[in-house]
Amino acid sequence: MVEIKRLDEQAIEDLALGATVLGTGGGGDPYIGKLMALSALQEGHEITLLDPKEIPDDALVIPSAGMGAPTVIVEKIPRGTEVMNAFKVLSDYLGMDVYATLPIEAGGLNSTIPLAVGAKAGIPIVDADGMGRAFPELQMTTFHLYGVPATPMALADERDNVVLLRAANNYWAEWLARTITIKFGGTAWIALYAMTGKQLKEAAIPGTLSLAQKLGEAIRESKESKEDPIDAILEVSGGFRIFTGKIIDVSRRTTGGFARGEAVFEGLDEHKGHTLKIQFQNENLVAILDGEIVASVPDLITVLDMTTGRPITTESLRYGYRGVVIGIPCSEKWRTPKGLEVAGPRYFGYDIDYIPIEKRMEGRE
Amino acid sequence: MVEIKRLDEQAIEDLALGATVLGTGGGGDPYIGKLMALSALQEGHEITLLDPKEIPDDALVIPSAGMGAPTVIVEKIPRGTEVMNAFKVLSDYLGMDVYATLPIEAGGLNSTIPLAVGAKAGIPIVDADGMGRAFPELQMTTFHLYGVPATPMALADERDNVVLLRAANNYWAEWLARTITIKFGGTAWIALYAMTGKQLKEAAIPGTLSLAQKLGEAIRESKESKEDPIDAILEVSGGFRIFTGKIIDVSRRTTGGFARGEAVFEGLDEHKGHTLKIQFQNENLVAILDGEIVASVPDLITVLDMTTGRPITTESLRYGYRGVVIGIPCSEKWRTPKGLEVAGPRYFGYDIDYIPIEKRMEGRE
Repeated sequence: MVEIKRLDEQAIEDLALGATVLGTGGGGDPYIGKLMALSALQEGHEITLLDPKEIPDDALVIPSAGMGAPTVIVEKIPRGTEVMNAFKVLSDYLGMDVYATLPIEAGGLNSTIPLAVGAKAGIPIVDADGMGRAFPELQMTTFHLYGVPATPMALADERDNVVLLRAANNYWAEWLARTITIKFGGTAWIALYAMTGKQLKEAAIPGTLSLAQKLGEAIRESKESKEDPIDAILEVSGGFRIFTGKIIDVSRRTTGGFARGEAVFEGLDEHKGHTLKIQFQNENLVAILDGEIVASVPDLITVLDMTTGRPITTESLRYGYRGVVIGIPCSEKWRTPKGLEVAGPRYFGYDIDYIPIEKRMEGRE
Repeated sequence: MVEIKRLDEQAIEDLALGATVLGTGGGGDPYIGKLMALSALQEGHEITLLDPKEIPDDALVIPSAGMGAPTVIVEKIPRGTEVMNAFKVLSDYLGMDVYATLPIEAGGLNSTIPLAVGAKAGIPIVDADGMGRAFPELQMTTFHLYGVPATPMALADERDNVVLLRAANNYWAEWLARTITIKFGGTAWIALYAMTGKQLKEAAIPGTLSLAQKLGEAIRESKESKEDPIDAILEVSGGFRIFTGKIIDVSRRTTGGFARGEAVFEGLDEHKGHTLKIQFQNENLVAILDGEIVASVPDLITVLDMTTGRPITTESLRYGYRGVVIGIPCSEKWRTPKGLEVAGPRYFGYDIDYIPIEKRMEGRE
């Protein structure tokens, strides 16, 4: 029997909040995606999560997402039809029934976009994704690591421009899609990485939407029970406390379709006298303690509000904010040589070997 | 009975040469397109021209072309499969049999590309085009003036990247396609403006491939008969001699996917003591005699070699070249208010009213 989990408003609120923890500062403000999912519920659609194991091997699944700099997405509210346009153009092109959709990234905005798409298309959402977090580029997915082509891929905007790409490889898919996204005004709504159930079971990271929901639940419940929300998040995520501090400087610029920049934290409590710097490209890439990298991609680096435990996205970072920087181990799929080539520190221009966060934290706590 | 005209090698040579006159300095070097057409002939394919009147009203026709800065196209020889890729993707998308192809522009490279496409696809080429000349942007076609959408449109490159666009309007088609062309490395091979036979008969400029062929024939025969090739070209085209001079300065730059620049001519013979400047954006836009515009788009401005009558493209303009600048009246379809809005001098940034070349030349000869 197929086990289906129906999401209600509370579940969506929790999932969107937890997805911001997995968003590692980027992935877009989940508020937009949450509104789209809630509005689908209010229109009477059902939002159902499906375990990836339940997908037939020969079924077609198509992930759906938003693309662009988060700083732009929050200022350019979608009509909601854009992503359905992209989804429909791609499924029409493939000429097969679509069994389910799913996120390419469980972090941020893109965790909830597929909820709205699945609801409106009348199909379930697979409880899995292709990152287990958020990443800034299209080819940075475990789908890519397992040889799933990102294209054919459809992009749509709010003017009803639609582009269907068939790229030479997944890097070309990223370059072409990024260029089109910029031309669209900074945001595109996309459907891509169409694959079979068999490919999905091999290439996706399972259970990440449930994980996001549990993280959101933990934050909400810690508020009700007055427990420390940071501890609750670390327990659910298996993460580590890296730094506690106050933001004393933030610089950001939107270039090449990405939000890039850094935030500097001055230590508080046990970190008094120390400085932590976080550098980001849409998502947080590295945490640098007193000049030395102490956490890096592909592990997750997230800033949480010291009091509420709510994650702070890169576009919300600002002077005076008191935050706790945490690190969460990434999926094992990212820790292979190929995974690190695609999304390790060197890809982002840092000349260091990747050391898993749990190794780095040994003996520190 | 359907009248079909078969083109042999000589006809293709003539057509490509004459198309350079209609190319008004741009449209790409016809050498590449000619080679593609000749190679299709040598592979045993037939190249047949069809009068637009012979196309059934409900038949589907799809124009085919190259896109990009001519300066790049001549340095990046296509494999020949790119444009077939684009043509196939668009016809597959439309899901109908394609009755014929045709050029969007009869000037330059793009006059001969459809010959190769038609030959390889086993369909005739319509003796018509959408410009009666060459123009730098996609929406600058008489198809556009008559409401034919440029998209769905397919773009392909030599790496097997393929993009299918469905744009909000023809300007968006141009912007998106231009961006993708730049990302492809400066050249894209395209299929667009799919239309019915009925639309074609209303919106196309008929007989332009035959005209190109006659122009090429005139240049070739004037060489054999030792007559003045310039006179022969003016007679066939109904054009005017604007200026005879030697190039004393050329500046060009490739920006935004276009080859822009100007050439300055110092007068010879009856124009001694005068200076003529030609400004171009892929194609020649205006001729400025002693500081005053004497010819402008949408009329055709072409530089011919003084001795051979062979047209000189903007990328071949260089110091010391002796040339005759001629002006040829454009199609009446361009002389409407809508036509001038789309491709008149003001669109290109010149604050002047369009005056037909034959009016400007009254009393000058």
